[in-house]
Amino acid sequence: MIDCDVHPQIGDPEELLAYVEPGQREWFRGQGASLGLPGYPWTHPVSWYRLDLERNGDGIPGSRADVVAREALDAGGADLGILNADDAVTLSLMASPYRAAALARAHNDWIAERWLDADTRFRGAIVCPAQDPQAAAAEIRRVAEDDRFVHVLLVGGAERPYGEPRYLPIFEAAAEAGLPVAIHSGGEGLGIAAPPGGAGAPTFYIEWHTVGSSASIVAHLVSLLCHGTFERFPDLRVLLMEGGIGWLPGILWRLDTNWRALRAEVPWLERKPSEVARDHVRFTTQPLEHTDGHDDVLFEMLAAVGAPDILCFASDYPHWDFDEPRWTLNRLPAEWRDAVLHDNAVALYGDRLGLVAA
Amino acid sequence: MIDCDVHPQIGDPEELLAYVEPGQREWFRGQGASLGLPGYPWTHPVSWYRLDLERNGDGIPGSRADVVAREALDAGGADLGILNADDAVTLSLMASPYRAAALARAHNDWIAERWLDADTRFRGAIVCPAQDPQAAAAEIRRVAEDDRFVHVLLVGGAERPYGEPRYLPIFEAAAEAGLPVAIHSGGEGLGIAAPPGGAGAPTFYIEWHTVGSSASIVAHLVSLLCHGTFERFPDLRVLLMEGGIGWLPGILWRLDTNWRALRAEVPWLERKPSEVARDHVRFTTQPLEHTDGHDDVLFEMLAAVGAPDILCFASDYPHWDFDEPRWTLNRLPAEWRDAVLHDNAVALYGDRLGLVAA
Repeated sequence: MIDCDVHPQIGDPEELLAYVEPGQREWFRGQGASLGLPGYPWTHPVSWYRLDLERNGDGIPGSRADVVAREALDAGGADLGILNADDAVTLSLMASPYRAAALARAHNDWIAERWLDADTRFRGAIVCPAQDPQAAAAEIRRVAEDDRFVHVLLVGGAERPYGEPRYLPIFEAAAEAGLPVAIHSGGEGLGIAAPPGGAGAPTFYIEWHTVGSSASIVAHLVSLLCHGTFERFPDLRVLLMEGGIGWLPGILWRLDTNWRALRAEVPWLERKPSEVARDHVRFTTQPLEHTDGHDDVLFEMLAAVGAPDILCFASDYPHWDFDEPRWTLNRLPAEWRDAVLHDNAVALYGDRLGLVAA
Repeated sequence: MIDCDVHPQIGDPEELLAYVEPGQREWFRGQGASLGLPGYPWTHPVSWYRLDLERNGDGIPGSRADVVAREALDAGGADLGILNADDAVTLSLMASPYRAAALARAHNDWIAERWLDADTRFRGAIVCPAQDPQAAAAEIRRVAEDDRFVHVLLVGGAERPYGEPRYLPIFEAAAEAGLPVAIHSGGEGLGIAAPPGGAGAPTFYIEWHTVGSSASIVAHLVSLLCHGTFERFPDLRVLLMEGGIGWLPGILWRLDTNWRALRAEVPWLERKPSEVARDHVRFTTQPLEHTDGHDDVLFEMLAAVGAPDILCFASDYPHWDFDEPRWTLNRLPAEWRDAVLHDNAVALYGDRLGLVAA
């Protein structure tokens, strides 16, 4: 079983700062625990983390490789876990692309030495300063040489949707290295990001988590499809994480309908967008919508747009709403389970994942 | 049969300008055809209108009451049609609330004299300067005295979602008059509105129409539910127009799930948000998503969140994607038809609709 979304936490900032180039280290140290990352106006009223997890000496769960291996892999029964940066992924929303580039480099090196070296069951995600796409591409090319990194990680919050041509160097570098690009919800409205949700800043965390984190993922999906990103990079795969999937049929139906009427705007799209999505886009399961007794409807909806082939399991450890594998497993139709828990991730990541028995 | 969304067009601007107070008329005249309304960076590559409609002397379809009565009511078989301002609804996105208030007043008076007086089968929508909620409330109270106006009309584009307390005077005035508040997609990213879609401005009209116009409606729905608007105004009804409905189950499931975990933020919500929505929120059908052969899935999804009771028919005459009643009727499950085409609108609007046989 493969868990596509485990979030290693930065415990002691000094551990990460050791990887920041010395000339910039004092600036980051001066920012305190935030490391200069943009702050959230919308925060969980209780805790970002599950309350029942082991807290390390620093008071933060999930900040030590051995604890994460025990809680996220051993306990969940995962053979591999992909480590996606947590708050640090919002470095692409920092005002300064220079600071962002330095922090990205440090975070990637920290992941390699402190996590991937510590347990062979971990895989890495490459963070990059997306606000400076050329610098981001250079960082992707540098880190991709370490084949334990299995995808490029972008955050949902952005100045413009990721289909915009300014971001092409990022997708080009990923495609060249054979890496999928994962876009993980979060960061909407932070730092230089546009406001979340399509009608201006929401008020509450519950709104931000419901609307903001789904709307950004919808926006990036539709943008990539409309700009013909997958026509430019025929081998590119994109993994959309944690933005929900219940909205997917409605959005793809609407987009297909509009494509029939509005192709004059996007003449490079020769196939229905939903077909392109089915070939190139995957989704992680967490947080799999609770459906109030309508799981049958949810799975029928998802089957109409390509499930189970489009779904990869993710737990989102150690966050407050993380999905235990058994909980997800038991909800899924029995004939979907192998695909969602294992086969689809193997197909997505290929050789970089290493050989994993089902 | 009741058509909840017919858009009367402004043909000759002078006809509307005659209703603008003289001291402001020259300013509006100086703006030319735009009347000072904010412009769209995203426009239809062919035409905002169906190409097969009768063009009046001014070259614009739908700008004369007799033509609209013939094309939208007689041809469609509608007993009543609710006239919703078209571009003019974006007056709430003008930088100046003073100009917006003057234009709202003129538009409401123009609708009353030029349209409602011309055909007794028309009903009106009250436009208001939402960027100045006190002025908006005053305009709603003024116009609501004419009982041919059946709802207050807001536009999807906004600075902040409509649950924000700044907008309470609008909802208070509507509730006091017993009028539903209709929120119609459009205007996202125009003038003073926040950018559409949750990840910054999209590039193409096809993106804007797919993402922007749905995301704003999602944002307003979730905002109104989270702020407890329906707890404040227990008789208030909201009609969400033209933002799609395919996303509804996924969003309500996600919101219910989050409500269970995050009630500390919104302690005034004592019921599941989806239940409150079912009691207070209605949706117009157009543009009913084309489903690529999966209509059965679409209707099953909608039934899971309260259809057919939550759906009211709308044609969106004279726009390019308008739904002919027969086309919608034939797609709907047979046992839903009376509710969607007639009964739900009668229940929503009550006495103001006048007596209409089913």
